[in-house]
Amino acid sequence: MAAAPPPLKDELDIVIPTIRNLDFLEMWRPFFQPYHLIIVQDGDPTKTIKVPDGFDYELYNRNDINKILGPKASCISFKDSACRCFGYMVSKKKYIFTIDDDCFVAKDPSGKQINALEQHIKNLLCPSTPLFFNTLYDPFRDGADFVRGYPFSLREGVPTAVSHGLWLNIPDYDAPTQLVKPRERNTKYVDAVISIPKGTLFPMCGMNLAFDRDLIGPAMYFGLMGDGQPIGRYDDMWAGWCTKVICDHLGLGVKTGLPYIWHSKASNPFVNLRKEYKGIFWQEEIIPFFQAVTLSKEATTVQKCYLELSKQVEDKLGKVDPYFVKLADAMETWIQAWDALNPPSPSED
Amino acid sequence: MAAAPPPLKDELDIVIPTIRNLDFLEMWRPFFQPYHLIIVQDGDPTKTIKVPDGFDYELYNRNDINKILGPKASCISFKDSACRCFGYMVSKKKYIFTIDDDCFVAKDPSGKQINALEQHIKNLLCPSTPLFFNTLYDPFRDGADFVRGYPFSLREGVPTAVSHGLWLNIPDYDAPTQLVKPRERNTKYVDAVISIPKGTLFPMCGMNLAFDRDLIGPAMYFGLMGDGQPIGRYDDMWAGWCTKVICDHLGLGVKTGLPYIWHSKASNPFVNLRKEYKGIFWQEEIIPFFQAVTLSKEATTVQKCYLELSKQVEDKLGKVDPYFVKLADAMETWIQAWDALNPPSPSED
Repeated sequence: MAAAPPPLKDELDIVIPTIRNLDFLEMWRPFFQPYHLIIVQDGDPTKTIKVPDGFDYELYNRNDINKILGPKASCISFKDSACRCFGYMVSKKKYIFTIDDDCFVAKDPSGKQINALEQHIKNLLCPSTPLFFNTLYDPFRDGADFVRGYPFSLREGVPTAVSHGLWLNIPDYDAPTQLVKPRERNTKYVDAVISIPKGTLFPMCGMNLAFDRDLIGPAMYFGLMGDGQPIGRYDDMWAGWCTKVICDHLGLGVKTGLPYIWHSKASNPFVNLRKEYKGIFWQEEIIPFFQAVTLSKEATTVQKCYLELSKQVEDKLGKVDPYFVKLADAMETWIQAWDALNPPSPSED
Repeated sequence: MAAAPPPLKDELDIVIPTIRNLDFLEMWRPFFQPYHLIIVQDGDPTKTIKVPDGFDYELYNRNDINKILGPKASCISFKDSACRCFGYMVSKKKYIFTIDDDCFVAKDPSGKQINALEQHIKNLLCPSTPLFFNTLYDPFRDGADFVRGYPFSLREGVPTAVSHGLWLNIPDYDAPTQLVKPRERNTKYVDAVISIPKGTLFPMCGMNLAFDRDLIGPAMYFGLMGDGQPIGRYDDMWAGWCTKVICDHLGLGVKTGLPYIWHSKASNPFVNLRKEYKGIFWQEEIIPFFQAVTLSKEATTVQKCYLELSKQVEDKLGKVDPYFVKLADAMETWIQAWDALNPPSPSED
């Protein structure tokens, strides 16, 4: 058995978007209490969110966001969990773990509680292998390695920027699938971590997600969703598409698989259908757009990549719907806000 | 639970390359006995291979291969399990399952014996999804589906041409890894089947492999290995690289993961190093070659794709070593031999 990874207590923030008291933290106490929490309160800012005793946290409501970002607060969604990305921006840590407040501790097949955070840290601290598929999955896990035929020059791998965890019980289905399969539960514990190959897009879910903020933070913008917007439930998808093409361009890795959390409650499929409706059509044009995106050689930082991407979103997806012109504009505002809160150190470019 | 797949008894042959008595079939009897076996005897043709009673089989030794193929027999390797591809050529069935004679029935985590063939048939009979990654793995398995954000236009998937199974106990490692990790055993049962994304290469192992002969058969050439050749243990890799680029070109899918077999015995790492030695260097040029290969619009059949590929092998890899000129030539001979034994029906192009 490999030793547990370093806990990175001073290098990781847990970001939680919520509209309610955070009772769910009780179950996570043994795993989360050592860490600092950034709580992004959505909806009515006059409401008080109760946080169980003993947790170290800072909490931002809409008034705080408006105060901190001023006019740039327009890029942060309201009445949608997309607001969580504000927490990524105000963090000063190297790593972020974000989790939904209806996600609980899952058990592995032996009945042991899964320390999701520990697995995310493992995933982030060892390399990804997006340039060639390894049939025994993550070659850096205990008891695994690269198989015969894996080119030796590619075995160093690339730095891992994103660790995408999965969900037992309620799977992350879209509204049509929820409507068609109301009783489906995910009971399959797949003991694998996989590098998503270069050039391949994936549906990134924000429910159970960790990333290296230094490597990819500015790409983790969850877009314009919810209040006043024509679309919802595509916030994490948008971030995932942008993040993946930028990771591919910059030579960074994205892993998916372990750890599992226990997703307790399906959201209302009728409400979801209303939120997703336009996205169901739009994604048919968005996916080919992202599959074809190329970034220039000059795009050597996440910010530069993201700004190039925002221009292409405006040019190419603006034709699909004026919403994308607004979104492209918000993408630029996001980068401005990020850079204002995270001024580059003098030694950086 | 989904019903078991149709057993395809009249549509599948099991191909086994061997140099010894096939005692290993005793353990497989409940699963293999209903099927027809094609045994390709390697090495000394005067030796008698014993097959346990009750199996329906045909056996080909080197004399048979020479008699059937005449001068074209030069494309079939000798003293190397690459000779197995002769079995693919003489089969008249739609599906092939090939397995090594040191592979036994594995058990799943519940202790139940795994019917590898049944899982391969499941894999081949349901579509692949190489155009977008599904985070809950094969969406066509029981209890799984496409997750939120998976484009609806891609959910029909593509026909599955290849099912690549894995190995418990002795993993399929190269000689350097065997030397470095002599005690490593694969004990991780990963309950997943994955479509290998389009544009991504993988190391295809021939130990536990099934494919749709009608869809991809002529690409399953295991190259020139063993006796008289400068290289061994790259036979299945070569077939995998060729097969994957042709599947990508023709819109076919490749799956990897379940089923597991129990791989009983590690081959000698010193012998393996001698066989692999040149391949370790060559694959550093072969992989970029296959990653960059493009096939023309006119290449609408596997045969046409394969002949285009052979020309590119000669042009591009011939510079690496004269072996590849010989291999390119053997690739053409293979297609000629395939077409001679499998004349296209009048309705086909």
